[in-house]
Amino acid sequence: MASPGSGFWSFGSENGSGDSENPGTARAWCQVAQKFTGGIGNKLCALLYGDAEKPAESGGTLFNMKSLNSKKCYYLLPACDGERPTLAFLQDVMNILLQYVVKSFDRSTKVIDFHYPNELLQEYNWELADQPQNLEEILMHCQTTLKYAIKTGHPRYFNQLSTGLDMVGLAADWLTSTANTNMFTYEIAPVFVLLEYVTLKKMREIIGWPGGSGDGIFSPGGAISNMYAMMIARFKMFPEVKEKGMAAVPRLIAFTSEHSHFSLKKGAAALGIGTDSVILIKCDERGKMIPSDLERRILEAKQKGFVPFLVSATAGTTVYGAFDPLLAVADICKKYKIWMHVDAAWGGGLLMSRKHKWKLSGVERANSVTWNPHKMMGVPLQCSALLVREEGLMQNCNQMHASYLFQQDKHYDLSYDTGDKALQCGRHVDVFKLWLMWRAKGTTGFEAHVDKCLELAEYLYNIIKNREGYEMVFDGKPQHTNVCFWYIPPSLRTLEDNEERMSRLSKVAPVIKARMMEYGTTMVSYQPLGDKVNFFRMVISNPAATHQDIDFLIEEIERLGQDL
Amino acid sequence: MASPGSGFWSFGSENGSGDSENPGTARAWCQVAQKFTGGIGNKLCALLYGDAEKPAESGGTLFNMKSLNSKKCYYLLPACDGERPTLAFLQDVMNILLQYVVKSFDRSTKVIDFHYPNELLQEYNWELADQPQNLEEILMHCQTTLKYAIKTGHPRYFNQLSTGLDMVGLAADWLTSTANTNMFTYEIAPVFVLLEYVTLKKMREIIGWPGGSGDGIFSPGGAISNMYAMMIARFKMFPEVKEKGMAAVPRLIAFTSEHSHFSLKKGAAALGIGTDSVILIKCDERGKMIPSDLERRILEAKQKGFVPFLVSATAGTTVYGAFDPLLAVADICKKYKIWMHVDAAWGGGLLMSRKHKWKLSGVERANSVTWNPHKMMGVPLQCSALLVREEGLMQNCNQMHASYLFQQDKHYDLSYDTGDKALQCGRHVDVFKLWLMWRAKGTTGFEAHVDKCLELAEYLYNIIKNREGYEMVFDGKPQHTNVCFWYIPPSLRTLEDNEERMSRLSKVAPVIKARMMEYGTTMVSYQPLGDKVNFFRMVISNPAATHQDIDFLIEEIERLGQDL
Repeated sequence: MASPGSGFWSFGSENGSGDSENPGTARAWCQVAQKFTGGIGNKLCALLYGDAEKPAESGGTLFNMKSLNSKKCYYLLPACDGERPTLAFLQDVMNILLQYVVKSFDRSTKVIDFHYPNELLQEYNWELADQPQNLEEILMHCQTTLKYAIKTGHPRYFNQLSTGLDMVGLAADWLTSTANTNMFTYEIAPVFVLLEYVTLKKMREIIGWPGGSGDGIFSPGGAISNMYAMMIARFKMFPEVKEKGMAAVPRLIAFTSEHSHFSLKKGAAALGIGTDSVILIKCDERGKMIPSDLERRILEAKQKGFVPFLVSATAGTTVYGAFDPLLAVADICKKYKIWMHVDAAWGGGLLMSRKHKWKLSGVERANSVTWNPHKMMGVPLQCSALLVREEGLMQNCNQMHASYLFQQDKHYDLSYDTGDKALQCGRHVDVFKLWLMWRAKGTTGFEAHVDKCLELAEYLYNIIKNREGYEMVFDGKPQHTNVCFWYIPPSLRTLEDNEERMSRLSKVAPVIKARMMEYGTTMVSYQPLGDKVNFFRMVISNPAATHQDIDFLIEEIERLGQDL
Repeated sequence: MASPGSGFWSFGSENGSGDSENPGTARAWCQVAQKFTGGIGNKLCALLYGDAEKPAESGGTLFNMKSLNSKKCYYLLPACDGERPTLAFLQDVMNILLQYVVKSFDRSTKVIDFHYPNELLQEYNWELADQPQNLEEILMHCQTTLKYAIKTGHPRYFNQLSTGLDMVGLAADWLTSTANTNMFTYEIAPVFVLLEYVTLKKMREIIGWPGGSGDGIFSPGGAISNMYAMMIARFKMFPEVKEKGMAAVPRLIAFTSEHSHFSLKKGAAALGIGTDSVILIKCDERGKMIPSDLERRILEAKQKGFVPFLVSATAGTTVYGAFDPLLAVADICKKYKIWMHVDAAWGGGLLMSRKHKWKLSGVERANSVTWNPHKMMGVPLQCSALLVREEGLMQNCNQMHASYLFQQDKHYDLSYDTGDKALQCGRHVDVFKLWLMWRAKGTTGFEAHVDKCLELAEYLYNIIKNREGYEMVFDGKPQHTNVCFWYIPPSLRTLEDNEERMSRLSKVAPVIKARMMEYGTTMVSYQPLGDKVNFFRMVISNPAATHQDIDFLIEEIERLGQDL
C-alpha cells in the first residue's frame, strides 16, 4: 500500500523498533488463539508450531507466516493437515483487508491511485498461466488489486449512488461468501430463504401494503428489478405471453419520464417490447414527471390501438434526484387500469425516514416497487429488491417446474422453495447483509443515516446556491441528496450566455474530474442532460462524509478549475 | 457451533486450562499487530489499550473484546476513534468464519443441522425492529446463521452442481466485498475491468476461438447467460427487434434438447418469444441430442414459415451430465444459418482437462458459450460467463448510451467502459475470485481438480454398476461426474417390473433423502425424469471428496434405505 503518511497501518520503522524486538508471529497467534477458543490453546499451538518446532524470531515480512506462504494453494484445506496454512493464509488476507478498511476512512489517503488502462496493463502481469503461483504471490495480488482500487468507502468519494462501506454489511458479506450457497431452495439455504421472507415482508410493510402482504425477490440490480416489473405487468394483462410470446398480444406501451433510468428501455428491448414502445413523459424543471403529459400520451397510445400496460414512475431520479408525483400517477393508472411500477431504486431509502418519506406518498398504491438498499441505505453491492403487491404472480409468470430442483415430494413445506419465481436459476445470497445491518442499526439507524445524508446535501446546496462561480442546474432545495451545479471558472464568469460560453462550460467539468482523479483527492460525477451541458451531480449516500468533506469538495473544485 | 467433538476449534475446557492462565486478548492482538506492521506496533497498541488502559485479564467469552461488543455498530468506522472497535469486531467475525471453514471440511461435523421452516422461524427471533442491537448480538446472529447453514464445502455434500469451498476463491470473494464496487466503468473498477478482459480472453482461447478474440461478460448465473445468448442471436438476425420489438419480426424458433436446462424456456418467456417457440429435440438413451431429430424439427419449422434462430446444445446436462454432439449440431447450424449456442454451464470446466475436453469437440464452432466456473471449477458463487464469438454484438444489442454513466469525454480509453453491453446497470464483481484462483492453481490445477472429480465419479460408477440393490438409470460410464442410479431396497428386489414396483420405487429416494437431511450425514439430489421415477443423481465438483466419501455415501444410502 503505497500512500505515504496514511495513519498507523502504514509500514516502515517509524519508531525505530526492529522486528527482532517483537515476539514470533506464531507465538503471538497462539496466544490469541488460546483466548478465543477457551481451554484448547495447547492443541492449537501444537498445530501452529508442530510438535517440537519453536516459533521463529526472524521476520520483517508483511505476512504472517512467510514459510507457509511460499507454498502453493494445495497446502490449504481441504488438504490433509491444511488447517495450519489455511488459518495463516486467511489471516494474512484478513490483515490486508483490515488495512484497506482503515485506510478507506482515512482522509489523508487518496480516493484513487489513478492509472490509465494501458499503464495498468503494462505495470503488472495480470495474465493467466498454466502453472500455479505461491500463496505469497497471491497475497501480493490482493495488495496490488487494492492498491489500484477505488476506495468507495472514502468520505470524499461521491461518484456514484452507491458509496460507503458499512462494517456490519461487510462482515455479513464475508459470511455470505463463506456460506457459499444459492437461494433456490430452503433445502440448501434455509436461513437465507427465511431471512429473505422476513426482510421482504418488512419492506412491503414500510411501503404501506396491508400486513406486508405481497411478493418479491432480491435481484441482481435495479435494472433487472425493473425488468421483472415489466415482465410481471405484461403477464398480469396477457398471461398467454408466456407460452405464445409477443406475437399473441397487441402492441404494448410503457410510460416513464424522460428523466427515468435507462433500464426501462433496456428491459423493453430485452423483453421483445422494443424501445420505441417506451414513451418518455415530459418532466418539469425539477425533473418530475408531468401527470397531464402522461395522461395525454396514454390517450394517444390508446387512440392508435396500442395497449398501455405499465407506467414506471421514478422515486429519486438518477441525475436530479427527483420524485415523480406518485399520487397523481396512481390516479391515472387507476383510471386507465395500468400497472403502476415505482422505480425507487435510489429514493426507496427515504421510506426509512419519518422526515422524508412524504416524498414517496402514493408508493403504497403501486403494483410493484424497485428498491435498492445498496444505494441510499449503504448496504454493500448488490442488494436490490423488487416488491410486488399481488402474491403468486411472480411464480406464475416465471415458473418452469424443473423437477430436479423443485421436487414436489420433499419432506418440508415447499412454499419456501421460492427459486422458481426467479428469472435466474442459481441466485446469489443478497439478503444477509441487509438483514444483519438492519439488526445492527435498527430502522432508526437507517433513518439517521438517510437524514444525515440529506442534511449534508442541503448543506452543500446552501453553500453554493449564492456563491460566486456556481450556478444551480435547477432551482430550489434538492429533494434527495442530488445537488446539480455548474462550476463557472473566472474566465467564463463575464462571458455572455451564448453558444461559445456553453461550449467552453461543457469542457469544465470533464477537466476538473480528470484532475480530481489524477490527484486522487475526491471524485464526483458529471454529465450533460438534455440541453444542459456537462454539470456536476453531487450525491451523498456515505454517512462517513461530514460538512468538512463538503467544504473540501468545493475548495477542490475551485483549486482544480480556477485556471480553466 | 453445536456439533460435538469436531476438532480443535470446538469450545470448552478440554485440557483444564482456564482462561485466566492465558494472556489478555488485547495484548496478544497487540503482539500480532506489531509483527504484521513492522515497527509501528506501539501506535497500534496505544489504540488497542488506550493510553493508560491495561489489558483485561478476565475472559471466558467467545469474543475478542467483550467490552467493545456490548457497544452498538455506531462505534465502528467511520465513527471517530472507530478503528479499535472495528478491528476487534471484524476479527471476531473472522474467527467465527475461520471456525466454520475448518468445520466445513471436518467429516465428524454434520453437513446440515436440519430444522423445518416453522421450527427455525420459532426457535429464533429473526424479525427486524426499530432499535439497534449490540455488536455482541450481531456476532451471535452470525454464529446462528452458520449453525443452520448447509456446509456446502463439506466433502459429503453432493447435492448440487456447485459444491466445495476453495480457500483462495473465498479470500478473493472477501476482497471483492471489501472493495465494494461495481463493474460498469473502468473509472470505478479499474483492476476488475481489466481482469474481466484478461479472463474472458483466456476463456475464449480455451474454447478455441482464434487469438481469444470475441466478446463476453460475467453475468448473474447460467440462466441469465443463456438468456443473453438468445437475445444476441435474435439481435444478430433481426437488429430491428431492439426498437420495434417482436411484433416486427417473424415467429422465431429456438431448439434445444429435452434434457436441456429449463432456463432456455424461462428466457424465451421473458424475451417475448414464448415457451411454445422452444422446440425440445429428442435425446438418445444417454441424454444426448439426436442430430437427425434436430434437422427434422428445423425443416418442420421452416415449412410452417417460422424462422429458426437459435440452437442451444448442452455440454453437460443437469441430470445425466450428457454432452450433445457439438460437431453434428454445428454442421446443421451452418447448413441452415442458425446461431449455435452451447450451454456449457456445467460441462465447460472439462475444457481445462486435456483428458476430457474432447467431450466438447465442436464448441469452437459455437457463436456463443455459457460457462459457469462456479460449477465444475469450484469458484465461489456466482461466477458465470457468457462468451460470444463476434465482437461488438453485445454492445450493439444492449447499449442505451446513458450519458450520466458512460460520458464520452472522459480522459481515458473508453473501450474499457464495458457496462453498456450488459443488461444490468450495476453489476457485481464476479471475476476476481476466478482470476485469483486461476493464478493460484494455474490451468494445470483446474485440470487436476476436474480430473479428480471425474475419477471419483467413475469410482462410484464402478462400485454400484454390478452391486446388489442398484440399478443404473443409463448404461455405460458417465461422461461427466453425474452418476444416476436407483437404490432398490431388499423388499423391492424380487418384485416384478410393474406399475406397483415403480410406484413404490418412486418413494424410496425421497425418504432416504429426508433421512439423510435429518441425520445430516450427507446430501445427494434425486428427481424423476421423463418416464423414469425418482432416482439419485450423484454429482461431484468438490475436490475435498475422496473414495472413502463415496464409500460412505453408498453405505449411508443402504443404511437409511434397507427397511423401505
